[in-house]
Amino acid sequence: MTDYSTAPLAVSIGDPAGIGAEVIAKCWDNRARFELPPFVAIGDPRSIAAVWDGPIALIDGLDEADSAFDVGLPLIQLAAAQADIPGHPSVAGAHCSLDSLEIAVGLARSGSARAVVTGPVSKEQLYAIGFSHPGQTEFVAERCGVSASNVAMMLAGPTLRTVPVTTHMPLTVAAGALTTALIESRGRAALRGLQRNFGIEDPRLAVAALNPHAGEGGTLGREEIEIIEPAVAALVAEGWRVTGPHPADTMFHTSARAKYDAALCMYHDQALIPLKALHFEEGVNLTLGLPIIRTAPDHGTAFDIAGQDRADPRAMAAAIRLAAQCGVHRAQA
Amino acid sequence: MTDYSTAPLAVSIGDPAGIGAEVIAKCWDNRARFELPPFVAIGDPRSIAAVWDGPIALIDGLDEADSAFDVGLPLIQLAAAQADIPGHPSVAGAHCSLDSLEIAVGLARSGSARAVVTGPVSKEQLYAIGFSHPGQTEFVAERCGVSASNVAMMLAGPTLRTVPVTTHMPLTVAAGALTTALIESRGRAALRGLQRNFGIEDPRLAVAALNPHAGEGGTLGREEIEIIEPAVAALVAEGWRVTGPHPADTMFHTSARAKYDAALCMYHDQALIPLKALHFEEGVNLTLGLPIIRTAPDHGTAFDIAGQDRADPRAMAAAIRLAAQCGVHRAQA
Repeated sequence: MTDYSTAPLAVSIGDPAGIGAEVIAKCWDNRARFELPPFVAIGDPRSIAAVWDGPIALIDGLDEADSAFDVGLPLIQLAAAQADIPGHPSVAGAHCSLDSLEIAVGLARSGSARAVVTGPVSKEQLYAIGFSHPGQTEFVAERCGVSASNVAMMLAGPTLRTVPVTTHMPLTVAAGALTTALIESRGRAALRGLQRNFGIEDPRLAVAALNPHAGEGGTLGREEIEIIEPAVAALVAEGWRVTGPHPADTMFHTSARAKYDAALCMYHDQALIPLKALHFEEGVNLTLGLPIIRTAPDHGTAFDIAGQDRADPRAMAAAIRLAAQCGVHRAQA
Repeated sequence: MTDYSTAPLAVSIGDPAGIGAEVIAKCWDNRARFELPPFVAIGDPRSIAAVWDGPIALIDGLDEADSAFDVGLPLIQLAAAQADIPGHPSVAGAHCSLDSLEIAVGLARSGSARAVVTGPVSKEQLYAIGFSHPGQTEFVAERCGVSASNVAMMLAGPTLRTVPVTTHMPLTVAAGALTTALIESRGRAALRGLQRNFGIEDPRLAVAALNPHAGEGGTLGREEIEIIEPAVAALVAEGWRVTGPHPADTMFHTSARAKYDAALCMYHDQALIPLKALHFEEGVNLTLGLPIIRTAPDHGTAFDIAGQDRADPRAMAAAIRLAAQCGVHRAQA
């Protein structure tokens, strides 16, 4: 059985032309300050050397990770067909980013790695090489034998966790896609995720309304009455501590956030606006519902600033730290 | 002509059973700490005495306000048919709150008051006495001879100002109500409001997208391309500094907020979620497009905590302070 509390973490670099390599290297540089456990990067060493002149410690397996971590950034080496220039993505780089993800997931599934932390990829580039999943999350789910419809995305910052019920679709489509069953399912994933990954025995979930003022008794929309309230009632009937639907605008200030462990949000921006307003530099994406632990920094490849030493490593550091903490909680469960 | 920079402010108490009286009295108590200029409350002295044992200075006109302000809370007295018990609204109280609003607006229109600050009312109670406006804003607009469709609501906090294009309607109705003309109109109101009330000569307006990732080139919704972009282009063509549509989730962190003076938001919660997440205790509602200055604290009557000495006066203080500052800017214009 995997020792979740001590095995190293596997970090895929993501697109070699993006900021992944830079933020991972900066995490190793600042490993003491960020309080990071041993982790191993997986990717092309040229993409790291292009943006960082620190020591790289090439390793063949995760058993070498702990000792290597003291002398350099441990790296499981992949060789792209060509070395990308930062900010200039290529098809070769896309293949490399996919290989990196595949290996990281494999290490976690085999139990060699405590968790997977995924660097940012370019979906456009991945689609160009035939990648058919909406994103890395669905790919990881498939590799773990889990239906993509059973996983949920949690956005976690130091004082707020949100779980969107719907994600990447037009706003009116998202509103129409809400069903009581879907809200219940995402709510359960959030609640179990809080137990399993955060060690919260009896988690509290606050469910957001869709409409302003939570529909104001039906005059500003009926989704609360017809769709959301029955889902809340069903979860409460199962014994979970669930409240709502709450007016979304009064859910996210300091004293409101103290009343729940996660907020279940109806659409992408409802979950992401407060998270990023409060914790832009430290937002972590945690996938719930997987047999393995998977986190990612809540930012993209940022090709526009790649190779300029301007990338902020705090979100990657938070993703590594959260993955490690989830490992500890799972080990104790 | 009104001397906007020195005339006192007229503050309507709002519903006598709500927290209006308490927060106004606390503002007078803390007038030095909150740096508040002389203001005059308008309402039933019994509703103040029920929640506060400080000195009330009854006055007959605003010319007595400055000297009265040093010895007590200046009050223009209204007598409700009966005294409300805090937390227990009545029809008599609703009449009193409407009279208070009417007098405050009249004082501002006549030039005796620098601005109107409106305490929270109960729409339910007002509707019960035949009030036919959606809210106080529309009532004030009518009294000022301005069409309600030409005024806009700005939510202002210490580090963020937002203006919603649509307000109190179901989310899907709001999405459907967006037109290029409406966005342009609200954008102009926001820009002129920044010039007139905040003294910003060449204001910067950031326009939010409706869909996640600003529609991602049309794959996550077409409103950005078909409705919002043309509005931005039209405002830019008029010479305004307008940008967007921006993905809403990356508009509200500290460094993003530094790039604009106000954010134009497509729906209620998009404007209110970030404002209240960041500035819950100090949010002010400023009505743009009126000949007079009108602000209000961004909270309701809070009947559930009325009379318990628990109401936080900071939003009312911020509303009074902002009204005064707007007066200074208008005087300098």
